[in-house]
Amino acid sequence: MSLYGGIEAGGTKFACAVGSDPRRILSETTIPTTNPNETIERVIQFFLKIQEENAITAIGLGSFGPLDLDRTSPTFGYVRNTPKPGWANTRIVGEIGEALGVPIVFDTDVNIAALGEATWGNGQDCDPLLYLTVGTGIGGGLIIHETPFHGLIHPEMGHIRVPHDWNRDPFPGTCIHHGDCFEGLASGPALHQRWGTPGELLPSDHEAWILEADYLATAVTNLIFTLSPKRIILGGGVMQRTELLVNVRCKMRELLNGYFEHKLLRDEIAEYVTSPKLGNRSGVLGAIALARKACES
Amino acid sequence: MSLYGGIEAGGTKFACAVGSDPRRILSETTIPTTNPNETIERVIQFFLKIQEENAITAIGLGSFGPLDLDRTSPTFGYVRNTPKPGWANTRIVGEIGEALGVPIVFDTDVNIAALGEATWGNGQDCDPLLYLTVGTGIGGGLIIHETPFHGLIHPEMGHIRVPHDWNRDPFPGTCIHHGDCFEGLASGPALHQRWGTPGELLPSDHEAWILEADYLATAVTNLIFTLSPKRIILGGGVMQRTELLVNVRCKMRELLNGYFEHKLLRDEIAEYVTSPKLGNRSGVLGAIALARKACES
Repeated sequence: MSLYGGIEAGGTKFACAVGSDPRRILSETTIPTTNPNETIERVIQFFLKIQEENAITAIGLGSFGPLDLDRTSPTFGYVRNTPKPGWANTRIVGEIGEALGVPIVFDTDVNIAALGEATWGNGQDCDPLLYLTVGTGIGGGLIIHETPFHGLIHPEMGHIRVPHDWNRDPFPGTCIHHGDCFEGLASGPALHQRWGTPGELLPSDHEAWILEADYLATAVTNLIFTLSPKRIILGGGVMQRTELLVNVRCKMRELLNGYFEHKLLRDEIAEYVTSPKLGNRSGVLGAIALARKACES
Repeated sequence: MSLYGGIEAGGTKFACAVGSDPRRILSETTIPTTNPNETIERVIQFFLKIQEENAITAIGLGSFGPLDLDRTSPTFGYVRNTPKPGWANTRIVGEIGEALGVPIVFDTDVNIAALGEATWGNGQDCDPLLYLTVGTGIGGGLIIHETPFHGLIHPEMGHIRVPHDWNRDPFPGTCIHHGDCFEGLASGPALHQRWGTPGELLPSDHEAWILEADYLATAVTNLIFTLSPKRIILGGGVMQRTELLVNVRCKMRELLNGYFEHKLLRDEIAEYVTSPKLGNRSGVLGAIALARKACES
């Protein structure tokens, strides 16, 4: 059985693993995201240690973005103009690939999470599949025709504009590019800044959660009208608040207002809009799936 | 050379043609959309007349929706719960196919327009391609991996919610399902009802057009963040107002605010967001392409 590496490069941590599928993981670790030099060096050391005794066939790498995924571009494999301090224009694929001497398959963090769920989680046999993460940032990954979807660059679904009632919610939003876009209104930092308390410390009956459910439901409904996915998986730190998903579904039915006659968009919406089966490992396992899929095809 | 039929079933007219490509059209006609019985009978008569002297291999049919495109469903080939009076639950594919004895390939009106532009128009070599029509209704068609995209049902992009500043624009919207969704605010009927005058009679310096450009730019920007298409073609009656496209592009650059570094989303946006090359024939020619593609594959 060939071994593959997986890296989920996130804004707060890099999750790394080596294995072939969720039941055959040889080694797994988490490295805090500090500056690019230090973080990437620690990632390289993790894999070099494994390589002393095992051959790694390929590595899948999913990263926060925006990314350059265009193989013909001089900046292919770079993290581009991310607002994350120190990380703009980081040559992430080149640095890791050259140090380890292993081919790297590169994609967005949300696409590998979507691929993880499509391969081994709650997205099996659901194509097109939408995975939306709601955490430090908001982003959407798409599997279409069994392949992570890119288009011209790649989707950045967190930056869609949604209705913002300034009377009900005078908070101006946190997005440095767009102010009150979806991410600017509904990400973890938006919750924190609006209420002066981190989301995880807000009680379940706080008005924050109804407002949060309304923004999420509006955005997810927009994504249904645009993409018509066969299932939607909502992951990320903010979604750990379990009642939130129930309120999102409830508000979605109100917003859809019976437009579609499909049962998944009516009585069976709990099956349609759901949580990741792989929990917070969707990304790193999806990165392994990405590498494996590239080698097998 | 085989002959194919094309039908674009629209809310105001059915465009029908027989041929093999835009330079080889044997016959073409337009039938007003009245009630289903009368309209479908006239469509059948048009093709029966051709069949007296020519064999038609297959017919492509694109229709307003929502549609049932699921081949395993008992209502496959039906127009479903459309607000168009008299047309809900019309068995359109079955009626035409049985009368003519010809296989029918069925899709949305916007998908066939997208396919027409992808095959012979301004969408060649642009995959994924987004075609958005802004007219009596608003809808988006998508070509992904050279194939019209459906998903669970099919996209209904006109029904996304966009920010609506009630102080600037107190108009409540025209959508019977969602009030002030994108279509409810920016379709031809919305223009007419808001200003009391049909769009085509509003002068070019009327404030209506700046508001319209703002809604269109917001929605198109959302579609870019969600789909990252390689080109966007804006068709439909409302887009006949030529200055509108210029204002949409201008507002889009403001909304994107430099987030993407790609030249098509900056200085070359006029190449990226453009008009249909086939004009108002994108749909009917795309229907011919749909039939031809199905037979050749």
